[in-house]
Amino acid sequence: MRCYELQGPGGIDALALVDKPVPQPGRGEVLVRLTAASLNYRDLLTVKGGYGSRQKFPLVPLSDGAGVVEAVGESVTALAPGDRIIGSFFESWIGGEPSEARMRAALGGAVDGTLTEYRIFPAHALVRTPAHLTDIEAATLPCAGVTAWSAVVKLGGIRPGQTVLTQGTGGVSIAALQIAKMAGARVIATSSSEAKIERLKAMGADVVMNYRTTTDWGRKAREITGQGVDLVVEVGGVGTLNESIRATRIGGTIAFIGVLAGAPASELRLPLMVMQQQRLQGVTVGSVEDLQALANALALHQVKPVVDRVFPFTGAREAFHYMSSGTHFGKVAIAIG
Amino acid sequence: MRCYELQGPGGIDALALVDKPVPQPGRGEVLVRLTAASLNYRDLLTVKGGYGSRQKFPLVPLSDGAGVVEAVGESVTALAPGDRIIGSFFESWIGGEPSEARMRAALGGAVDGTLTEYRIFPAHALVRTPAHLTDIEAATLPCAGVTAWSAVVKLGGIRPGQTVLTQGTGGVSIAALQIAKMAGARVIATSSSEAKIERLKAMGADVVMNYRTTTDWGRKAREITGQGVDLVVEVGGVGTLNESIRATRIGGTIAFIGVLAGAPASELRLPLMVMQQQRLQGVTVGSVEDLQALANALALHQVKPVVDRVFPFTGAREAFHYMSSGTHFGKVAIAIG
Amino acid sequence: MRCYELQGPGGIDALALVDKPVPQPGRGEVLVRLTAASLNYRDLLTVKGGYGSRQKFPLVPLSDGAGVVEAVGESVTALAPGDRIIGSFFESWIGGEPSEARMRAALGGAVDGTLTEYRIFPAHALVRTPAHLTDIEAATLPCAGVTAWSAVVKLGGIRPGQTVLTQGTGGVSIAALQIAKMAGARVIATSSSEAKIERLKAMGADVVMNYRTTTDWGRKAREITGQGVDLVVEVGGVGTLNESIRATRIGGTIAFIGVLAGAPASELRLPLMVMQQQRLQGVTVGSVEDLQALANALALHQVKPVVDRVFPFTGAREAFHYMSSGTHFGKVAIAIG
Amino acid sequence: MRCYELQGPGGIDALALVDKPVPQPGRGEVLVRLTAASLNYRDLLTVKGGYGSRQKFPLVPLSDGAGVVEAVGESVTALAPGDRIIGSFFESWIGGEPSEARMRAALGGAVDGTLTEYRIFPAHALVRTPAHLTDIEAATLPCAGVTAWSAVVKLGGIRPGQTVLTQGTGGVSIAALQIAKMAGARVIATSSSEAKIERLKAMGADVVMNYRTTTDWGRKAREITGQGVDLVVEVGGVGTLNESIRATRIGGTIAFIGVLAGAPASELRLPLMVMQQQRLQGVTVGSVEDLQALANALALHQVKPVVDRVFPFTGAREAFHYMSSGTHFGKVAIAIG
Repeated sequence: MRCYELQGPGGIDALALVDKPVPQPGRGEVLVRLTAASLNYRDLLTVKGGYGSRQKFPLVPLSDGAGVVEAVGESVTALAPGDRIIGSFFESWIGGEPSEARMRAALGGAVDGTLTEYRIFPAHALVRTPAHLTDIEAATLPCAGVTAWSAVVKLGGIRPGQTVLTQGTGGVSIAALQIAKMAGARVIATSSSEAKIERLKAMGADVVMNYRTTTDWGRKAREITGQGVDLVVEVGGVGTLNESIRATRIGGTIAFIGVLAGAPASELRLPLMVMQQQRLQGVTVGSVEDLQALANALALHQVKPVVDRVFPFTGAREAFHYMSSGTHFGKVAIAIG
Repeated sequence: MRCYELQGPGGIDALALVDKPVPQPGRGEVLVRLTAASLNYRDLLTVKGGYGSRQKFPLVPLSDGAGVVEAVGESVTALAPGDRIIGSFFESWIGGEPSEARMRAALGGAVDGTLTEYRIFPAHALVRTPAHLTDIEAATLPCAGVTAWSAVVKLGGIRPGQTVLTQGTGGVSIAALQIAKMAGARVIATSSSEAKIERLKAMGADVVMNYRTTTDWGRKAREITGQGVDLVVEVGGVGTLNESIRATRIGGTIAFIGVLAGAPASELRLPLMVMQQQRLQGVTVGSVEDLQALANALALHQVKPVVDRVFPFTGAREAFHYMSSGTHFGKVAIAIG
Repeated sequence: MRCYELQGPGGIDALALVDKPVPQPGRGEVLVRLTAASLNYRDLLTVKGGYGSRQKFPLVPLSDGAGVVEAVGESVTALAPGDRIIGSFFESWIGGEPSEARMRAALGGAVDGTLTEYRIFPAHALVRTPAHLTDIEAATLPCAGVTAWSAVVKLGGIRPGQTVLTQGTGGVSIAALQIAKMAGARVIATSSSEAKIERLKAMGADVVMNYRTTTDWGRKAREITGQGVDLVVEVGGVGTLNESIRATRIGGTIAFIGVLAGAPASELRLPLMVMQQQRLQGVTVGSVEDLQALANALALHQVKPVVDRVFPFTGAREAFHYMSSGTHFGKVAIAIG
Repeated sequence: MRCYELQGPGGIDALALVDKPVPQPGRGEVLVRLTAASLNYRDLLTVKGGYGSRQKFPLVPLSDGAGVVEAVGESVTALAPGDRIIGSFFESWIGGEPSEARMRAALGGAVDGTLTEYRIFPAHALVRTPAHLTDIEAATLPCAGVTAWSAVVKLGGIRPGQTVLTQGTGGVSIAALQIAKMAGARVIATSSSEAKIERLKAMGADVVMNYRTTTDWGRKAREITGQGVDLVVEVGGVGTLNESIRATRIGGTIAFIGVLAGAPASELRLPLMVMQQQRLQGVTVGSVEDLQALANALALHQVKPVVDRVFPFTGAREAFHYMSSGTHFGKVAIAIG
């Protein structure tokens, strides 16, 4: 089988296409023939050396993959060859609260990921692909989709009639918009491109603001809603966090996903956050249980994730370069095999 | 009746002792003869001009007071003259979620406070004083006590066997220690004085670290607990917040109370907070319901708040100066009348 | 002004139309000119003497009303004459947890209700009528609408992709269907009439079963969903409760609204309920906060309550008789004035 | 190795002591040398044929056991030979919500239990024994202890100052008393024996009522608390459930554990339960996560489960007969080997 390996801290060009024997599933394990994978910002960071010396090499990159069961190991009864499945981001976080033990085995980080033709998964880490989704679409769910689900539903607890603010058109933000609409919420979105603004509206965003022309979009969101939004899905840096604090109602939540590298504390409006009894909730993807819940919701609503562009397996490096350019609307995927 | 008024932005010396007529309670209102009040850091900030041009003048300062019902207005049936009562920090936040409307009328801030011999309260904002408490002790509960209760119990959801980390020996921290022990938790406390460390141990703190000699107390707390503490009651600035993030377990909570006055330029470890799915939960005192719950718990456990020093009514300015010096262990109070 | 009074335990015929002076609002109060009211099963029970000697007489019946602010008392700033409003079921339950004190003043039960041209409400018990609703529609929300909201959203915590089972076509059941759809859930409904089944499907019910021909609808619902439904909105008696227990998944909830007069315990499948860790959650309407949340959701989704039939003020007795016949689909209302 | 087998539906006398080879642990598995086991009412029901034709034969009975790791299989790194451990009631319910899949493998029910000298456990189903507990004490936790923990802490959410009512002196009730005290609650207990009443008081019960002389203990508990208790740990039948509904406050919870065997024809006060928005919460033991949380709490508080009597391995049948007599206070255990 063919797979990509990141062989050292050399960036996208350190990705090598190698040949390896197809592994055999042990007790409780499943051999999956992967047909699709997708990229997340975190994968770009990994490949570019963002996790420094903690990064294992060689590493098969990417956390997200979908495909077909090829063979099952001893004692696996819930799945059979031919079943279409999606792999979970954390192999050992089945359900319940997060913990160090449960978050240890993150695909494409601590353990090998999905940019490969075959991979062994523990049976408990696989979820059946909803019938209305292609494998490419399914492969966009494990990281961005589940993160958005955790932010809006599991941790955000959004109810019908509440308001969610999303930022930009990355994978998590688009998924959060879709999930918030399924949950009956009003969505205020931001973008800097008029074309993207139109697409966001077409997807159901109730209000879209151009954050370049409306730089005080936080204050504006507070005005529109009267008391502030119930939830912000925060994917940005210091500037957006400050506007998010302004946007959020007293007692509201900021689901915090973005990596604020080097945020100087003096510029953050944390005192305001305290005075308004707001909650800054870190979100780190989710469990197999969460992936299953998301799949159920998408199936009921026949909602499909937004795929920006699909690269062939041999174009994996190009996919990383494209991701890096930041011009995508939704997810960047790779067709395998 | 005599009361203190902050008559302008002149600091502690702008506090004037004035004479005013005793007011009469209207429908749903209660006239209280206050016998005790207590100070909080926020009162010091108010008097020193920390809230700038938003501050109303003249202002009767202090949010916390206890005393005796003198007279009740029309339709008040739950209370009668002679009843011992405590006033709630927010007059209009009876229960449920916080909101702008509910947090509008904060005593000693937006409305006149408790540094007065008589005051009108809405009947719904009063809670009966537990029998085992003196009025002085009762007067320490509305701000610091309820804040600690919200942090540990209402928002922190601490369960028996979990670990809570408290910082220093201010009113909120001491109350959080007492409440965490009532809730069956292990407490790790910090202090910079060996004498205070002994007192914290005597009050039930399981581990106390000297944060001057153990500057990496966050890492240490993580070591002691194995996976990190479940809750930090954060009352400090940027430096403590970073250590608190280190101290806290994956999925844990940092109850955020401190005002990051004069935040220096160092960097906040927010990315680590996200990666560990931690929650930074702003805490802004609480409701009448919360004050009642705290009073019930103290009554059952016969626990008394820790009063550092009691000043006479005529020594109110001195009390502010003492509070300012920061040497107290527990609460600074004023006996009225 | 004209109003109806239930003058003794004589059933529908004991309802008398009387004349009384229009009252004046005191401090914190609002005088409302009621233009619409609606009936609930509980009102029928009241009029028919179902609450026995606990019932006060004379009583202005009905809990649900909507209308227009006529005048406001001292200190009321949030409302002004001309504002369209809805009254809350419990006058003193503003938000938070239920309690004896908060549930004391139930309209049309312990205190006079809405079958009157004018009524005084505490300002805090009024919610603005969403613009897309007529007063008649708005008048159906306080009891049935809020009960359904509490069952599905507040206490049921339904998430997108989950399944809710509703029973029949009464006011609560229809509202629960609408709310469950807004919350992104799948709905399985039951009815005994083919015509009603069609209407339920038209309103978005995903599956409708005829409970006369499918007497084991609980088992069937479990089959359809694989593991059982997440929530049953239970409005029936012993027979339905047993089927509801069968329908519900392990760890699921039965929101319990129906009055099971004289349920013999030996016939109830309570041991099965325990073995499946199910929750039987009593639901008693809700707070002003809940009514506001429901109004927000309806406004965002432009959803209108289903009104079966509107009677004129002079036809109030007829409305009760019609309600008694049980043939309605949705709510029975009365236009006032 | 020796183990007991229930070889058919013959009651206690159908328990046979047999010899079998010691099994070998596979991948992810652990071989445990059991040194202690304990009995629960459910085991008595199993042996006496209470689960009818659903019961598998032969069956090694008992769900609860503790002992020492003898050997570990491939990939097990968290445990090593010599480690003292407790086994979880459900082998596959690691954490999170219950489900059919997670509750399938119940020891001593669907799969072989702990009345044996050696047993294979999945590594994820084992929790380390707190140092202050003997193996006998540890062996009382998996069913009764975790059930009490789920009732009081996980599902009951008891806070300091609240009130919990427990019934009698069985294993769950005694554990619930201990856990409620650790959580800072007031405990009202019932018993029919004056000697037991004294022991309950010595263990910290704040109020104990003799339910034979105080048959209306529910009404009495309501009187004592003013508004009713926050939680009842209900282990009885129809009669107690009705009194429990009376005892519980508006909005309170009845944690429902008891099997209503032989429910008589009297009527259940379910309408009252609805009117008071009470929650009847079925409790079915708990997960490995819950067992761990209980172990942590006991370790911190150095609390020991109450063991009534220990039988030798060869006296297992006698232990069942003793359990059957119902005279125990706390747990009945068996020393193995």
